[in-house]
Amino acid sequence: MSATLVTNLASLVTNDPAQGDGSRLGVISGAAVVIERGEVAWVGPARQAPAADAVHDAQGRAAIPGFVDSHSHLVFAGDRTQEFNARMSGRPYRAGGIRTTVAATRAATDEELEAGLVRHLGEALRQGTTTFETKSGYGLTVADEERALRIAARHTEEVTYLGAHIVAPEYADDPAAYVELVTGPMLDACAPHARWVDVFCETGAFDGDQARAVLTAGRARGLVPRVHANQLGPGPGVRLAVELGAASADHCTHLTDADVDALASGNTVATLLPGAEFSTRASWPDARRLLDAGVTVALSTDCNPGSSYTSSMPFCIALAVRDMGMTPDEALWSATAGGAAALLRTDIGRLTPGARADLALLDGPSHVHLAYRPGVPLVDAVWRRGERVR
Amino acid sequence: MSATLVTNLASLVTNDPAQGDGSRLGVISGAAVVIERGEVAWVGPARQAPAADAVHDAQGRAAIPGFVDSHSHLVFAGDRTQEFNARMSGRPYRAGGIRTTVAATRAATDEELEAGLVRHLGEALRQGTTTFETKSGYGLTVADEERALRIAARHTEEVTYLGAHIVAPEYADDPAAYVELVTGPMLDACAPHARWVDVFCETGAFDGDQARAVLTAGRARGLVPRVHANQLGPGPGVRLAVELGAASADHCTHLTDADVDALASGNTVATLLPGAEFSTRASWPDARRLLDAGVTVALSTDCNPGSSYTSSMPFCIALAVRDMGMTPDEALWSATAGGAAALLRTDIGRLTPGARADLALLDGPSHVHLAYRPGVPLVDAVWRRGERVR
Repeated sequence: MSATLVTNLASLVTNDPAQGDGSRLGVISGAAVVIERGEVAWVGPARQAPAADAVHDAQGRAAIPGFVDSHSHLVFAGDRTQEFNARMSGRPYRAGGIRTTVAATRAATDEELEAGLVRHLGEALRQGTTTFETKSGYGLTVADEERALRIAARHTEEVTYLGAHIVAPEYADDPAAYVELVTGPMLDACAPHARWVDVFCETGAFDGDQARAVLTAGRARGLVPRVHANQLGPGPGVRLAVELGAASADHCTHLTDADVDALASGNTVATLLPGAEFSTRASWPDARRLLDAGVTVALSTDCNPGSSYTSSMPFCIALAVRDMGMTPDEALWSATAGGAAALLRTDIGRLTPGARADLALLDGPSHVHLAYRPGVPLVDAVWRRGERVR
Repeated sequence: MSATLVTNLASLVTNDPAQGDGSRLGVISGAAVVIERGEVAWVGPARQAPAADAVHDAQGRAAIPGFVDSHSHLVFAGDRTQEFNARMSGRPYRAGGIRTTVAATRAATDEELEAGLVRHLGEALRQGTTTFETKSGYGLTVADEERALRIAARHTEEVTYLGAHIVAPEYADDPAAYVELVTGPMLDACAPHARWVDVFCETGAFDGDQARAVLTAGRARGLVPRVHANQLGPGPGVRLAVELGAASADHCTHLTDADVDALASGNTVATLLPGAEFSTRASWPDARRLLDAGVTVALSTDCNPGSSYTSSMPFCIALAVRDMGMTPDEALWSATAGGAAALLRTDIGRLTPGARADLALLDGPSHVHLAYRPGVPLVDAVWRRGERVR
């Protein structure tokens, strides 16, 4: 197996404080990285780099770990352009919300769903995202949830069962029966295809007791919990996530002091999704408050056709810095190592020997450019598992 | 000369209300466009398209006029990553502001300045910007301003003399003498290379009387005025711009009712630059107020290394919709036809017969996706003067 040397890097973010400048990002200036057998074999100052079979001259670019997008909803059909346009134009519109996408997704063929997923994953990859989690949740029948997960599992190892996204339209009058379906036959069909179980714990979706039932049933089948929590208002989601040892509580926009304390005392990552607040003109989650309390924070896109139709991790970084009180360093960490923590992964989100060789080169000398140059497509080369994919 | 047919467009924005749906954007669904001799020769429903020598199948994409970025500062050297990082991280930093860039620009060779300009223009072009204005203003000596304009004029016809960006450091104790230089020998050297004269009319830069002197001197040499006005606080800039018949008053963040009335009663375009508010965490200009008063509004990037280091017109559109009260349709118009109006151009910013064949294809079926899919690099094909450049 041949080794590739990527050299002449103005800077390299390792996310290992033992490297380089000793910061949390462990930034090595004038750096190089050696890739071998799909892994990082060596990082350090370029002048000390070992010989390799192939050399890529980065011409003064910055290298960062590939983004880890730990929250997306990419198995869907249809888009909701008209609904978005009406909302942003102040025009009335009979919005079906998630149900609109459920109807379109159920009506789509397997091939259509897979083609859409592949297209969005390619788009994310071109922007530097080398790991993505994705969810079911637009099927809401046993067969449609199972097929969403089956399709997703062909393209990522981070697959989440979200039968409890909303109560299926057919069960509008009997939510308890839908929870029984989600925790019974639907779980039986879905568990083999998923790593995670998720629930939208929010007024209008599932309450604390229902969410607990979904998560504990999933956990009993070997799935690890994660929770959509406290997005639209305060609620029990975050504390439930911590209590059940969820890997992540996602959104965390409306938090009480007790919620922050719970996150700080537990091992649950707070995953913030600024694309959702951007696209719905909602108020921002307060990343600063969480960071100052010692909570581990991840940043993700929440890419979905209703409330956050962005696949751009750089865009989320720029928003987090501008509007959520994160420094450029913290935002970069959260979009890489933070996402890895939210997926309980130690092989990604860092660039040190033994890690997966997932990295992105930026058209700029520093990772700070991701916030300094908002909206500009800066990612211009990507390696995933050591293979150049862009 | 051969004709090219771009067909199978899900939608085509013409910016001609006589076309398509009759809206201000004149959107034709299921459209095609024929390009010949660098101009648009025909637009209409694809099924009625005439024959052509070459065919480009847009596969259901949307086409829009190329963006017209009527405000940028791209002749500079150095970047200000550390200053940005410190500001966003809440760390003290001895920021030199514009003076930092002036020092770096003066120290640069012609070749370095031109290489930087070309790099940024290429970046903008890849994002769909087919016309850009750019300014001097980081030289502040006769020779340095003249060379900035000379270099800019090799790459765009929209060149602006901004000797009055700030008072040159050498004249800090005698601003009146600097205004005499700007309106005298510096103007003599610069006028042959520029179309426009601009001044930063703001507390800390140039007051109303100084701005008037700069603009009237430039006008007497055949340059057309445009004004940096009311960015950081209220002031006389906007009313002065209207009084002197400036093509555009740029920024317009802090406006009194009298300012809005002046704009509504005159022919001066209000050019809004949301990248600046984004990158400095400032409050947003109120586009809705201007539009409701009947003012013509343009959107531009203000691309510069200090306060708005973005070259992305799609990003500015997304911000304008999210935070400035513009609808997706209004934002698209302002980023194309609005920019053309701010440059007193009728040959660009529209896609109708006789217009320059400057167009962009989006990886999506509608221009609304530019706001609906924020941060995603959606522009995937660009023609300028009929030539495919991406």
